[in-house]
Amino acid sequence: MEIVNHEKFMTEAIRLATENVANGGGPFGAVIVKDGEIVSTGVNRVTANCDPTAHAEVSAIREACSSLQIFKLDGCDIYTSCEPCPMCLSAIYWAGLRHIYYGGTQQDAASIDFDDHFIYEEIALPHERRSIPSTPMMRHEAQQPFEAWRQKEDRVSY
Amino acid sequence: MEIVNHEKFMTEAIRLATENVANGGGPFGAVIVKDGEIVSTGVNRVTANCDPTAHAEVSAIREACSSLQIFKLDGCDIYTSCEPCPMCLSAIYWAGLRHIYYGGTQQDAASIDFDDHFIYEEIALPHERRSIPSTPMMRHEAQQPFEAWRQKEDRVSY
Repeated sequence: MEIVNHEKFMTEAIRLATENVANGGGPFGAVIVKDGEIVSTGVNRVTANCDPTAHAEVSAIREACSSLQIFKLDGCDIYTSCEPCPMCLSAIYWAGLRHIYYGGTQQDAASIDFDDHFIYEEIALPHERRSIPSTPMMRHEAQQPFEAWRQKEDRVSY
Repeated sequence: MEIVNHEKFMTEAIRLATENVANGGGPFGAVIVKDGEIVSTGVNRVTANCDPTAHAEVSAIREACSSLQIFKLDGCDIYTSCEPCPMCLSAIYWAGLRHIYYGGTQQDAASIDFDDHFIYEEIALPHERRSIPSTPMMRHEAQQPFEAWRQKEDRVSY
């Protein structure tokens, strides 16, 4: 039976988060683990790198996939210093991670003005009640790429 | 008054999506527009680039921010060939985009086995009912990076 030292990995995610503040980043860190080994790490570089998607978890997922040259992280777990925002949670689903371990909560993040909770609320609303308006158009024409996809015999699905 | 040719931008997003299928990518494209000009484009390169976050909208956001050297896309609109998945919708919120125009729907995407709808459903569930298990741990220690953040006088908030 595999004995996993969860605290070791979470301690590293938290250490990365704290170190990243000193390095001009946001207070978030994550590590991805496979078979008891860290395969990637990530920290929040949104303002430092001008990339609103550079959250710790997204960055760790991108690095793990790039390093392993795969687009699904089967059998991998993520340890993140704070509960994932909806962007990161969705990225975790797309990446097919196995288990999420998290330190701080959405409420802890809100206490330092990172309001992930607002986006969770918005996603749950019907389009017409969200704060960013959303307009459907040209649905008929938009089937063209899907039709091209259906007809492509060597397509790579995921 | 600004007259915006919405169809021109959506046509380009759809064209990029179709072209991307021929180039080995997924059938999705997006353009970001500011002041009537395209500032970035993105296509789905998940399998091609081994990056589960390389959806059209996320890629367009990353490119726009990198090119303009900003981390908030105030006053920018996104035209996407298909309704954003929850990862992309959240990224659109983090980036502060102004308006979303979309072509195909979640249902259209599901018809070619891109099941964004499943992730929307999962996000809405309480942790213990989601298909990816999630375990809180070391919440006390996880306050360290947040405390470092509070104490950092030159922090860049967003």
